[in-house]
Amino acid sequence: MVSLFVRIDLNSHGQIGPGKIDLLEQISERGSISAMGMSYRRAWELVEELNATFGRPLVESRAGGKAGGGADLTPLGYFVIGRYRAIQKAVEQASHGHLSALQAEIYAKRR
Amino acid sequence: MVSLFVRIDLNSHGQIGPGKIDLLEQISERGSISAMGMSYRRAWELVEELNATFGRPLVESRAGGKAGGGADLTPLGYFVIGRYRAIQKAVEQASHGHLSALQAEIYAKRR
Repeated sequence: MVSLFVRIDLNSHGQIGPGKIDLLEQISERGSISAMGMSYRRAWELVEELNATFGRPLVESRAGGKAGGGADLTPLGYFVIGRYRAIQKAVEQASHGHLSALQAEIYAKRR
Repeated sequence: MVSLFVRIDLNSHGQIGPGKIDLLEQISERGSISAMGMSYRRAWELVEELNATFGRPLVESRAGGKAGGGADLTPLGYFVIGRYRAIQKAVEQASHGHLSALQAEIYAKRR
């Protein structure tokens, strides 16, 4: 029930948090720039923020074909997902004991 | 230059982030409910949120005396600071290599 929210702050280069990472994962799964509960316009804005952060694309369009084109992640896009998820896992493992201790105090018999 | 923002989400019990922890540390140092760049009213609101999260006080008023009273942290207040700072340190150590890798990509010769 206690959890950590983790955001990577890149100063003038922006921020990377769970919203952008979830979006990248959904683009990879769907093969297009779209995500549950997010407008196409908003998804594009976030992709452009990510591309600007790294100075080169994390997402690229694919040429047409029968399906009328779509989008996929670049190797850099997969690299960023991988590093973020690794950070998230490392952070959860490193903080687990402390979070349990805080949770115990919250649920302690209230004195 | 790359850093992590860490916030503890306690679901219906609220959130603990760097703002509330900085405030607790300043109350401890100053001996009163006050913090740089924050109104007294706002400081009290945050203290009351913390007290509500744990169901008992993290900050308590001290009776008068020559200095006209003031405030100090309870043992629970110091416990919460300690756990948060321990989480922050563990998180920084656990994520250091991944953050360096991301930073290297941001500063890579832009291809």
